[in-house]
Amino acid sequence: MPQALVRALRGEPQSPPPVWFMRQAGRFLPEYRAIRAKATFEQLLSDSDLAAEVTLQPVRRFPRLDGAIIFSDILVILDALGCGVTIPEGGPRLARTLDQIPLDQPLDERVFEPVQAALRTVKANLPPHVALLGFAGAPWTLLAYGLEGKGSKTWSRAKAFLHAEPAKAQAWLEKLADAAARLLNLHIGAGAQGVQLFDTWAGELDPEDYAAFGLPAVRRTLAQVSGAPRLFFARTGYLPQALEALPCEGLAVPWQVPIAEARARFPRMVLQGNLDPISLLAGKEIATAKARRIVEAMKGHPHIFNLGHGLTPETDPEVLGAVIDAVKGA
Amino acid sequence: MPQALVRALRGEPQSPPPVWFMRQAGRFLPEYRAIRAKATFEQLLSDSDLAAEVTLQPVRRFPRLDGAIIFSDILVILDALGCGVTIPEGGPRLARTLDQIPLDQPLDERVFEPVQAALRTVKANLPPHVALLGFAGAPWTLLAYGLEGKGSKTWSRAKAFLHAEPAKAQAWLEKLADAAARLLNLHIGAGAQGVQLFDTWAGELDPEDYAAFGLPAVRRTLAQVSGAPRLFFARTGYLPQALEALPCEGLAVPWQVPIAEARARFPRMVLQGNLDPISLLAGKEIATAKARRIVEAMKGHPHIFNLGHGLTPETDPEVLGAVIDAVKGA
Repeated sequence: MPQALVRALRGEPQSPPPVWFMRQAGRFLPEYRAIRAKATFEQLLSDSDLAAEVTLQPVRRFPRLDGAIIFSDILVILDALGCGVTIPEGGPRLARTLDQIPLDQPLDERVFEPVQAALRTVKANLPPHVALLGFAGAPWTLLAYGLEGKGSKTWSRAKAFLHAEPAKAQAWLEKLADAAARLLNLHIGAGAQGVQLFDTWAGELDPEDYAAFGLPAVRRTLAQVSGAPRLFFARTGYLPQALEALPCEGLAVPWQVPIAEARARFPRMVLQGNLDPISLLAGKEIATAKARRIVEAMKGHPHIFNLGHGLTPETDPEVLGAVIDAVKGA
Repeated sequence: MPQALVRALRGEPQSPPPVWFMRQAGRFLPEYRAIRAKATFEQLLSDSDLAAEVTLQPVRRFPRLDGAIIFSDILVILDALGCGVTIPEGGPRLARTLDQIPLDQPLDERVFEPVQAALRTVKANLPPHVALLGFAGAPWTLLAYGLEGKGSKTWSRAKAFLHAEPAKAQAWLEKLADAAARLLNLHIGAGAQGVQLFDTWAGELDPEDYAAFGLPAVRRTLAQVSGAPRLFFARTGYLPQALEALPCEGLAVPWQVPIAEARARFPRMVLQGNLDPISLLAGKEIATAKARRIVEAMKGHPHIFNLGHGLTPETDPEVLGAVIDAVKGA
């Protein structure tokens, strides 16, 4: 029998809903920090045993989790295009921006081999009730990092590029879309039972630019992914109605939007989310009460409990455990 | 005859629409930077002649502007409550956070005297077609700064406080709401013909917390303001429908939301906005095309052209001038 998470991704409401957390393989866990004390982030990305280990850590600590998302980074695609990505504490840095790279640069798929190996290792070691998830960065988010060379407060360089060189921007977005689809298909080939496309900077484009540049590229990626259900996460308080027509099975709902409203506006979609990760810092009582209200609002609709953005390093694992118990007991 | 901006605020559609810009008195202007080379930000706040001068600068440079917003800062209210606010380059710093200040601390209204004097000076020197605007910070935004003591990426301390001490949080929000109303009424008494309440961190609360804590305090402020039309700016991609029922005449629409959608959802409201300030960095052609589409979408509805967030220091005044011309020629 398929796992609860897979059944929910197929559109079958589960009660209680399956649960996993964005960034669950990461900085809030002491056991993750213990590994990071001995290995850099880049070493974790390139060493499939370490990547598998940090993927499995949250599943070991929280046996009621329904999903394990593979440890990786959305920027591996830029690395495979020759950007020379490093991820120090202050955020990602690119040795070369995309405008220094030819449009016909081939994707070096060897970069993806460690994550494929890690997926296979995790798959062989996961408890049977836990589903394995893969992921990739969405084209606009990759283009934004690729043009800025690092994080930005305003993404002004990337945003201006869309208009200054629209044909080139679209060509890059298509290339990045194809690369993201390729990566997601590789994840599926290596055992992922569902994949999530992360458009972390969706909210940095105004709605007309996102409709013109961001969404067509997302559509292009999702349409090429096959073999497992697809989730799309647009991190933005303004969710365009056009998301309902995307070729995917589900939407990850940002915490800024009431999930009941997303249920009304996107009835075709499996919905995932959407607790504010910062509410986990307010203690067990608040976080569990908010989690229960989300579960309540989604009864009868295919729902995967999650956060509405990634876990912060400050999260107390005990509070997260209490939220899982609340979701499972609701 | 009242100015075009005042007529629009009364609900009368103007063609072309009146125009002003959030943060127009500020860092993007060389003449402002020349003054700041000789005076600190705090000196500008406390010297009414300097504050009046930087308020008038954009109106002199752009004679087609319809509004002048008084130079001040949303945090003057926290200063008047004894927080000891300074505003160095890296962002505001408070010497004392609100939890170190008693709830019955009286508002030191002497702090507001320079801005009142500046309003009177500006009023006496404005061209007759330009309307004068006052403003204040909204209660939740003030509480967030007041509890964190400075800007924050997550506002986790302030958000946790709402739930850890809800009664105290509500008491502070009410006190801050009353202080904001008092300040706006003082602005109106000194000549402001319209006022805007800025909830800069509205988007940092999840929708249920904003409904429980943010909005009731906004309502409390707006309901106490009289003598001039009231605009409310909630900086968030998710605009709750409850905004339509606020006791104010208009909404400033953030750039994240299509203004045509705001027009459909908030039919009672005068709408202001909502060009993405970052689109001004993409050059004249892009910025003016986007501006024209906004004007087009708002024809027949009371509309005040503006940005959907404040001007950035990187803005080229020539591009802003081109946008004004485009709005006036559209």
